[in-house]
Amino acid sequence: MGALDEGHFCEELENGVKLEDPETFAIEDAVRVLLQGLGEDVNREGIRKTPLRVAKAFREGTRGYRQKVKDIVQGALFPEAGLDKSIGNAGGAGGLVLVRDLDLFSYCESCLLPFQVKCHVGYVPSGQRVLGLSKLSRVSDVFAKRLQEPQRLADEICLALQSGIKPSGVAVILQCSHLRFPTLESVLLNSNQEVWSDVTVSSGSGVFKDENSDACSDFLSLLKFRGVNIKKTQTSECWCPSRISDSPSSIACSAVAPANHLMVSAVTSIIESLGEDPLRKELVGTPARFVKWLMNFKDTKLDMKLNGLGLCKIDTHKPNGVVHGNGGRMHSELNLSFWSQCEHHLLPFHGVVHIGYFCSEGFSPLPKSLLQAIVHFFGFKLQVQERLTRQIAETVSSLLGGDVMVVVEAYHTCMISRGIEKFGSNTATIAVLGRFSTDSAARAKFLAGITKAIGGS
Amino acid sequence: MGALDEGHFCEELENGVKLEDPETFAIEDAVRVLLQGLGEDVNREGIRKTPLRVAKAFREGTRGYRQKVKDIVQGALFPEAGLDKSIGNAGGAGGLVLVRDLDLFSYCESCLLPFQVKCHVGYVPSGQRVLGLSKLSRVSDVFAKRLQEPQRLADEICLALQSGIKPSGVAVILQCSHLRFPTLESVLLNSNQEVWSDVTVSSGSGVFKDENSDACSDFLSLLKFRGVNIKKTQTSECWCPSRISDSPSSIACSAVAPANHLMVSAVTSIIESLGEDPLRKELVGTPARFVKWLMNFKDTKLDMKLNGLGLCKIDTHKPNGVVHGNGGRMHSELNLSFWSQCEHHLLPFHGVVHIGYFCSEGFSPLPKSLLQAIVHFFGFKLQVQERLTRQIAETVSSLLGGDVMVVVEAYHTCMISRGIEKFGSNTATIAVLGRFSTDSAARAKFLAGITKAIGGS
Repeated sequence: MGALDEGHFCEELENGVKLEDPETFAIEDAVRVLLQGLGEDVNREGIRKTPLRVAKAFREGTRGYRQKVKDIVQGALFPEAGLDKSIGNAGGAGGLVLVRDLDLFSYCESCLLPFQVKCHVGYVPSGQRVLGLSKLSRVSDVFAKRLQEPQRLADEICLALQSGIKPSGVAVILQCSHLRFPTLESVLLNSNQEVWSDVTVSSGSGVFKDENSDACSDFLSLLKFRGVNIKKTQTSECWCPSRISDSPSSIACSAVAPANHLMVSAVTSIIESLGEDPLRKELVGTPARFVKWLMNFKDTKLDMKLNGLGLCKIDTHKPNGVVHGNGGRMHSELNLSFWSQCEHHLLPFHGVVHIGYFCSEGFSPLPKSLLQAIVHFFGFKLQVQERLTRQIAETVSSLLGGDVMVVVEAYHTCMISRGIEKFGSNTATIAVLGRFSTDSAARAKFLAGITKAIGGS
Repeated sequence: MGALDEGHFCEELENGVKLEDPETFAIEDAVRVLLQGLGEDVNREGIRKTPLRVAKAFREGTRGYRQKVKDIVQGALFPEAGLDKSIGNAGGAGGLVLVRDLDLFSYCESCLLPFQVKCHVGYVPSGQRVLGLSKLSRVSDVFAKRLQEPQRLADEICLALQSGIKPSGVAVILQCSHLRFPTLESVLLNSNQEVWSDVTVSSGSGVFKDENSDACSDFLSLLKFRGVNIKKTQTSECWCPSRISDSPSSIACSAVAPANHLMVSAVTSIIESLGEDPLRKELVGTPARFVKWLMNFKDTKLDMKLNGLGLCKIDTHKPNGVVHGNGGRMHSELNLSFWSQCEHHLLPFHGVVHIGYFCSEGFSPLPKSLLQAIVHFFGFKLQVQERLTRQIAETVSSLLGGDVMVVVEAYHTCMISRGIEKFGSNTATIAVLGRFSTDSAARAKFLAGITKAIGGS
């Protein structure tokens, strides 16, 4: 019981695979290489157990490799009568069954990041047998918990159900959302970047094979009247944002900076430890893409980043301009987007930052672009949300003379994936400096301003 | 690997407790007594393994009795700086942290049914330490997975976090929803019954102890601007619908029909097997309430129920009226509510039924009240959704001459609780008889009518 912090639950979820196995150790070693490549001290207390946490998350998140559909379906097929004398389709013979809105997550085979899946899965029973409803979810999850790509995921779920329960047909529609993680450079040029890459895919067997069949039409109607409007199935080729940016001019798979080769090898070994073949066509470029993405979070000093990029010069030790005489007025900049990386799990979190401040005498308001730049700079490193909040507040405070309030709202990939899977949950953190820490009316005014701006009730 | 059907996953989730333990066997025995009390053949294939499934669900759903908060929090407290020189609160010293919208489920101690919880939990760090975000969810879940009542659940989460991480304060707000399960008699008199019993409770320690404190005000503001508007905390006394109906005139705890005493004892033994004291004040009436509720699903013949209640007389062998000459027109009755009981898990499912039909020659349209009554009669028994759909279709067809289409949409408690926890998922089933099985235009017209009526896109 030496690793109770995160292990206690994950062990239970590990589906029969002991965490003290060679694969887990191998991933831990690989993650240490990655952390060193990021310039981190692997003995720092906050990240000391990150290799173990990442290994657990990967092993648990790809447990589908170690699960068999037969084990799930076996014993969960129940005898169920069809129609007795009437003409038609119902019950265990021909009556369409559809489970809608199953929240799943899977791992993108192109970049190793988790992506979200809204899964709709149905079948037409035959042979007077129906499947326990939860098994449609369980079977879908077996294939979600692998390195995947949306269309293959849909096809594998469909095929597995078709061969496992031998119905008249199976239909699967997946609405997949993949976080689009920009680079620091691109986000500084354009902060209004799309957050999600979305794709809808479908797969059908038997009576659902023909997209124009009556069965497909019924299936889509049943989705439609609960607000799920499947416009048109798209191919998911190149849906992964890191593949889209695989342009010849960017760092291509074969052109990784030499210093990163160790990291690329480390990621290759992770893929092997998960039970995958790193030479599978779709996985060949994955280690390089993962490393390229990860290197966005290499720690550098703020000043160096800011000044190095030549966007603006900041001298944090002097007032930043002439007196504007508006020291008593509250300024707000809301909904500044950010992207960051959870140092506990090496998984992204993203959201918005709201900043409120009073200008002290001798200081002038800061341009939105500078505030947004500061937010991005503190985002692009290994972080925890509490620290990000404090660092933004302290930096803005140093530029303005003291009275600053920062609210960060974030969706954490580590909360929707791993064993926790709390889809829809989100985290808010606050830092209050100077006047905001004592003036509750100022704080309330700033918070009410956020509610008004973003349309909360 | 003898019980792979449902056991495969549940074993992993059982958190170190083997399913082949005396407690699980004891619950299985008790469930067999309940099934016999319902007049069911415990060897019928569909319910043969129901005792095992119910035992697993109960044991897994109350695993919190076997978990320790210390094990979860230990090792997940990370050093995190507060403010260096500035005045204020941020990071590991004073910066409010709030995780919103955690979906949990718990078991009602008054009736043993699962209830849903939208959990918002936060704290103010002190001592330069922050807790891994997922632990707020994990700790909350330890207490949710017990026999609970909303206010106690909030208090226990609050107290456990306060003593586990020793912050400046902890705040918990729970929005709880309990299915209101009517009796067949009450629903026949009034079909528009409320589906949910809702209550919002809160608990605060340290800086959140005073509801008018600045900390509480910040906390509520952070909820408000994501649309969570906590009006006022209510007490959760008597929130359980089965307690509300504990009127002196109804079957009170002490006045159970003698034949049910065996069932009441069986439920008492289940509570004991879960590790609870059946003599705990709040649990004393629970077995009788559970049995009373369960007996709603005792199987009886439709004709007997219909005629027995004297609501209407149906002769299913003859046309039900004079010719109306409207055999070519489609009739629809949409959103007929239903409540039913999943025979695989002894857990409720509920939703709506949409019925479309053509009248054959010699038949006249059926009054909505009769269709609604038929729906209720087939709901109030141990069911699976596929069978419910078929039975409604066949019965309506026998009254109308053949051309009937039935769509059932349902939320299954067994899909949001147990190990699966697919909050928000729902299931649709179809039965098509006669003309509807061949006339795809008629089918499409009926389905489009549903979309239009219920405002889907």
